[in-house]
Amino acid sequence: MGQQKQEKVRIRVMSFDNNDIVEAECSTLQEAFAHIGKKEITWINVDGLHDPEIIWDIGKRFNVSELILEDFMNTDHRPLYHEEEDQIFIIAKLMSVHQEHKNIESDQFSLIAGPGYLLTLQERVGTHFDPVRQRIRKTPTRELTINPDYLAYTLLDCMVDNYMEIIAEIGEQVEKLDAEVINHPRKDTINEIYRLRTEMNFLRKTIFPLKEISFAFLKSKSVLIHESSREFLNDLHDHVIVSGEALDSYMLMIMDQMHLYNASISNKANEIMKTLTIFAALFIPLTFIAGIYGMNFEVIPELKWKYGYIFFWLLVVFVGGGLFIYFRKRKWF
Amino acid sequence: MGQQKQEKVRIRVMSFDNNDIVEAECSTLQEAFAHIGKKEITWINVDGLHDPEIIWDIGKRFNVSELILEDFMNTDHRPLYHEEEDQIFIIAKLMSVHQEHKNIESDQFSLIAGPGYLLTLQERVGTHFDPVRQRIRKTPTRELTINPDYLAYTLLDCMVDNYMEIIAEIGEQVEKLDAEVINHPRKDTINEIYRLRTEMNFLRKTIFPLKEISFAFLKSKSVLIHESSREFLNDLHDHVIVSGEALDSYMLMIMDQMHLYNASISNKANEIMKTLTIFAALFIPLTFIAGIYGMNFEVIPELKWKYGYIFFWLLVVFVGGGLFIYFRKRKWF
Amino acid sequence: MGQQKQEKVRIRVMSFDNNDIVEAECSTLQEAFAHIGKKEITWINVDGLHDPEIIWDIGKRFNVSELILEDFMNTDHRPLYHEEEDQIFIIAKLMSVHQEHKNIESDQFSLIAGPGYLLTLQERVGTHFDPVRQRIRKTPTRELTINPDYLAYTLLDCMVDNYMEIIAEIGEQVEKLDAEVINHPRKDTINEIYRLRTEMNFLRKTIFPLKEISFAFLKSKSVLIHESSREFLNDLHDHVIVSGEALDSYMLMIMDQMHLYNASISNKANEIMKTLTIFAALFIPLTFIAGIYGMNFEVIPELKWKYGYIFFWLLVVFVGGGLFIYFRKRKWF
Amino acid sequence: MGQQKQEKVRIRVMSFDNNDIVEAECSTLQEAFAHIGKKEITWINVDGLHDPEIIWDIGKRFNVSELILEDFMNTDHRPLYHEEEDQIFIIAKLMSVHQEHKNIESDQFSLIAGPGYLLTLQERVGTHFDPVRQRIRKTPTRELTINPDYLAYTLLDCMVDNYMEIIAEIGEQVEKLDAEVINHPRKDTINEIYRLRTEMNFLRKTIFPLKEISFAFLKSKSVLIHESSREFLNDLHDHVIVSGEALDSYMLMIMDQMHLYNASISNKANEIMKTLTIFAALFIPLTFIAGIYGMNFEVIPELKWKYGYIFFWLLVVFVGGGLFIYFRKRKWF
Amino acid sequence: MGQQKQEKVRIRVMSFDNNDIVEAECSTLQEAFAHIGKKEITWINVDGLHDPEIIWDIGKRFNVSELILEDFMNTDHRPLYHEEEDQIFIIAKLMSVHQEHKNIESDQFSLIAGPGYLLTLQERVGTHFDPVRQRIRKTPTRELTINPDYLAYTLLDCMVDNYMEIIAEIGEQVEKLDAEVINHPRKDTINEIYRLRTEMNFLRKTIFPLKEISFAFLKSKSVLIHESSREFLNDLHDHVIVSGEALDSYMLMIMDQMHLYNASISNKANEIMKTLTIFAALFIPLTFIAGIYGMNFEVIPELKWKYGYIFFWLLVVFVGGGLFIYFRKRKWF
Repeated sequence: MGQQKQEKVRIRVMSFDNNDIVEAECSTLQEAFAHIGKKEITWINVDGLHDPEIIWDIGKRFNVSELILEDFMNTDHRPLYHEEEDQIFIIAKLMSVHQEHKNIESDQFSLIAGPGYLLTLQERVGTHFDPVRQRIRKTPTRELTINPDYLAYTLLDCMVDNYMEIIAEIGEQVEKLDAEVINHPRKDTINEIYRLRTEMNFLRKTIFPLKEISFAFLKSKSVLIHESSREFLNDLHDHVIVSGEALDSYMLMIMDQMHLYNASISNKANEIMKTLTIFAALFIPLTFIAGIYGMNFEVIPELKWKYGYIFFWLLVVFVGGGLFIYFRKRKWF
Repeated sequence: MGQQKQEKVRIRVMSFDNNDIVEAECSTLQEAFAHIGKKEITWINVDGLHDPEIIWDIGKRFNVSELILEDFMNTDHRPLYHEEEDQIFIIAKLMSVHQEHKNIESDQFSLIAGPGYLLTLQERVGTHFDPVRQRIRKTPTRELTINPDYLAYTLLDCMVDNYMEIIAEIGEQVEKLDAEVINHPRKDTINEIYRLRTEMNFLRKTIFPLKEISFAFLKSKSVLIHESSREFLNDLHDHVIVSGEALDSYMLMIMDQMHLYNASISNKANEIMKTLTIFAALFIPLTFIAGIYGMNFEVIPELKWKYGYIFFWLLVVFVGGGLFIYFRKRKWF
Repeated sequence: MGQQKQEKVRIRVMSFDNNDIVEAECSTLQEAFAHIGKKEITWINVDGLHDPEIIWDIGKRFNVSELILEDFMNTDHRPLYHEEEDQIFIIAKLMSVHQEHKNIESDQFSLIAGPGYLLTLQERVGTHFDPVRQRIRKTPTRELTINPDYLAYTLLDCMVDNYMEIIAEIGEQVEKLDAEVINHPRKDTINEIYRLRTEMNFLRKTIFPLKEISFAFLKSKSVLIHESSREFLNDLHDHVIVSGEALDSYMLMIMDQMHLYNASISNKANEIMKTLTIFAALFIPLTFIAGIYGMNFEVIPELKWKYGYIFFWLLVVFVGGGLFIYFRKRKWF
Repeated sequence: MGQQKQEKVRIRVMSFDNNDIVEAECSTLQEAFAHIGKKEITWINVDGLHDPEIIWDIGKRFNVSELILEDFMNTDHRPLYHEEEDQIFIIAKLMSVHQEHKNIESDQFSLIAGPGYLLTLQERVGTHFDPVRQRIRKTPTRELTINPDYLAYTLLDCMVDNYMEIIAEIGEQVEKLDAEVINHPRKDTINEIYRLRTEMNFLRKTIFPLKEISFAFLKSKSVLIHESSREFLNDLHDHVIVSGEALDSYMLMIMDQMHLYNASISNKANEIMKTLTIFAALFIPLTFIAGIYGMNFEVIPELKWKYGYIFFWLLVVFVGGGLFIYFRKRKWF
Repeated sequence: MGQQKQEKVRIRVMSFDNNDIVEAECSTLQEAFAHIGKKEITWINVDGLHDPEIIWDIGKRFNVSELILEDFMNTDHRPLYHEEEDQIFIIAKLMSVHQEHKNIESDQFSLIAGPGYLLTLQERVGTHFDPVRQRIRKTPTRELTINPDYLAYTLLDCMVDNYMEIIAEIGEQVEKLDAEVINHPRKDTINEIYRLRTEMNFLRKTIFPLKEISFAFLKSKSVLIHESSREFLNDLHDHVIVSGEALDSYMLMIMDQMHLYNASISNKANEIMKTLTIFAALFIPLTFIAGIYGMNFEVIPELKWKYGYIFFWLLVVFVGGGLFIYFRKRKWF
């Protein structure tokens, strides 16, 4: 799932039918477009979406409305499914975990499917779709991908697989936190909890609109979609829902950890307070006794006693020790 | 989604069939009614519902019972679905976020669908249905909207889309609160939480009865509803349910934030109390010592010592410092 | 939904077919029974169930087993669905909000459906079923109600509609409590919460067994039930389930309010404790200082100073003020 | 649902077809087995399972494997569904509320259904199945029970009905606790809550595996099961699920009461602490003042004042009273 | 479910058709492979997966891709379902409770199903599949297992049964903790709770991906899967889901216990603090009184009284006793 930021655009073409497959890396879009129509299906993958020129060129070539093109260029766009007479447009997010900082990064991913071609656009160069490329290269599995609807399904399914892995990874981090939260809550445990919660919210915002997209794709009446693909689209929808549920269950878990963390912290503070209160309670009657013998009554017989001061100390030991034993016996500390 | 309060009523007519479309802005209802029947379908949209006269005129023209008309005029009416022999009546709420105050405003929206016409009434002038107008203007998508049931579906779907956007917007505000609640809860954080919760309750009261409406619409046996529309009505119902679920998940989230806020506030207070209790605990034995040497026993040897007072201070430093180090070691502060 | 307690029994008869309708108020059951068979269907509604005689008369006339009659007389009976060869027996509760005390009252409602007749028994005289009477009086909607199964469905549906209204009303009271609970929890807020919770529990106990009843009605193989009614019975079942869900969601809400109330009260008490502890913490070192200069060491140089007492007060101001500023700076109060 | 412990085994036989019914109480199993085959179906009910001999005899007569027989004898056995070529074996629990101690008791209940016979074994003599016996005795309902699959269904359904009643009874106890928990939590309230929770857990462990059993029964391909029974088995499964849901909802309720109880107890303790802290806070400055005038500075002018002591008391009243009024004003107590 | 760690690999073969069955324990894989094809189906079970050689041999014999072989060797592999033209590959975990330490242990379990053979690989020698072996040995149940898809189903179902037992066992431990948590929470109760929670998380990670596997198996279009097996695969999927739900319900329960534990601990600490605060509150006014008579005002009449000291003690008893009675009366302790 590694990615490198790249200045230049990378255009990869896979053009194939049942018998033959042509793979090429093109330097210009025109070169890539030239492949379309030669084989039964042509998949053009454009990595590095910075250049608006490219998107306009694509728009012109495939007769895409300006509105859609603008959505493609807006890298913050909400996942979207749209269909025209013989085209399907999908916008979604590719997720990846940054290899160093371990945080989740998202890439805008756009798709145009039409008769005999599939165009995919990615913000950055990535290896997300390598399993799909493998699949196309092998004869037995290639056959199905000749239909653009199935190829689009394969890409989306690959994307959702990727989500599942990321969710699983986050899930493991959540589970690791468990021991810490329950037994040794530290000050920065809450920050780690919060970081995970934020990442999950981020994932959630990507995965939840996908439900609508997979549903719309599944229910589509587009001429592009073969009856035989319905079942796969149904599986895709199930897959999206399952990943949403997995995420939800981890979100509940992190939420619970938050509550547990708060309870642990509060119990820890309570424990300290209790000990201090016991400590204070031991001294309170002693201070009272000292106060008594600091009074200025003319007649306080104890003050005249020869061993008055020793008597006082014995009293202190007796009262203090008695309370100490009493508190201990009641298992207060 | 902007809206302007407007004194005058605005009447817009779209009358169309597969070949042709007529758009007009009329000054009187009669003018608008004149369009009905000329094309296959006529959509009359009346913005600004204040004038009961208009509603009575509509009632007369379309043979609507008084009961329904009264529901139309009651701008607080609960969402409603009702059907007569060849008419369908729907009352729902249009939502919009006020551009300045950022709070949610709702507009009563009423709909009468009959053979060859669709009448919509709105409390205020709004742009909610502009996407539908766009759709009608374009040939390929116009075709479907020629049936009043499908047109009604389109309007309701557009309304639910709008709900989704508002829910998403509120959701983002909820997510933004997260960091504040967990790390730096402030006194007015609770007010913000409460504001969001109130707005969600408001949305909830609009969206939940809609489930029944979309269900009734879906299950309707009215002659107005074409078999081909069932599927769309089913999608509408799904859409309503999805938006309800999205709202519910944000409501759970804000609820959780409330609990977290309370826990954070409570932990913060506990932390302060703990520190103060430690502070007090340091002084308690010292005060006891001072109390001892304030006693009036005839024989307290230390009082006669030359360096008695210095001895006292050394004792204070020793006891106070000892406790301080002990508390520190146990990581109590 | 108003009701008056009434000593006498009120017997209302509606006897009708597609062409004609006869409405009568009878003074005796025999008079009412005489209507049966004259039209296609006869609906006898007996309000005021106190008199066991009436129930025995009904039992004799319709050949009802003693067991069922006893269930009818037990006004605390759990909702019930029972069917015999050509009869259906239903026991349920009618709900109403008392106009003055605003609390929910329930009325036992029993129903016997047989070929060509429908008998309903109510504990008290009520207006619950007036919408059904309206429906029967109007020609187009009367047609359906000629079958006793559909008429029974209509009455139950009307009853569930009524539940929904009551749930909505309680829901509004719950929502109104929200602001109070979060911002200004008062001692009697908890009583109001408890009152609502109790009323919801009461509703819940009525609505939940209804699920089984509507399900049994739906699945019934009785000869009384026309195939065309299945769909309506299905809708009734959905309706019952929806009202149960609505109630559940308000119950969760009130539960949450209870937790929030407890948290608010606890935070409020904590806040006060914190302030008092700060107050105490300010005095603790001052009392220690006073204790020092109350000691009786022979040599305490400060005691001999000319401005010793003033020095003491300066010390008090310095230490007390210093702590005050320190606590303020750390935002402890 | 009462039961008596009984030393001796009680064997009851019902043997019947559409025309005729024979009921007998046998002293030996052989006597009972003799009825099998004489009528279309024979139901042998053995109460009092202590004697392993009886079970071995049954095993021999019906060709039951040792494994199953051992399961039958293990009165702690988990509910089980098993089928052989032409036999069905079911183990479940009969529940009853002890009439005096009000706690729930369970009885192992085992069932063997085969062509033309149904054998039921119960740990103790009970009246659980009297409604089924009634049903068999009456002609119209007897007809169905002639098939062993339907008779088995009837017994299980009767058992689940019984569960529902017990759940309802516990539910009522839970609801009664509500007022106590919220308004007047007592020390032993928690014990009552715990008792109910334990009983629910006990019920839960019985009802939850039943889901699998009713599902296996429903899905069975056994030759014993008539197609016409499917629907009833489906209803049985629904019934089991509904009772599970009812129990779950009460378990949630008792859980909530536990949390509320804890919150109430904690708030009560907080309230007391708050009052005590206010009390202490009133004395703290007064003790400081007394400390000041206990100091031994050579020059403390107030000490020489004629009305110094009275001045002190005025100061005490002024400071103490001032704080008292201030605390009151801020509504701290 | 006992297991012994074993150095050597154990290879067991069952080769059978409707008439005949051959069981053998082989010392080499080649010996085992020789059985394939002699009967209708051959099940080779390899226990002890340490030796990569064995896996490579298997790979060569059955034409398995290196990728799959690597997954087989990675004993931490996530559960997986994969199918090739005429082979099905499944990776899952066998669970067992260690007989001494009572903790859950997992074993990697891999399966290759192809036409006429089924190969299973286990990390350690176990008795998990003995029930399946029994089933094969008996004629009537053997018939079905002749198809590799059904045999694979039987093994997986056996595995899930095993999960259910382990979940039930953990569930019982959770229920036993209940009494302790509510009535007598001890310091190490939290550790026991945490241990159970960790084990459940471990189970959860095994069972949840299984849902996808059973679903993929059910939906598979592989030529290996007979139409008659669909139903069983559906039951398997249901079984997996039911076990997931059972686990979830226990996880909710342990979570609740955690919250209850925290609440109990907190209430216990509060109770102690309350008692100590009452204790302190009794002494506070007494210390004030002692402070008064320690003042050095020239005129404090009480100091000169003959019975001044006795008066002081009477005052102490009166004030202290009065407070004590007052606190008791308000039921503060």
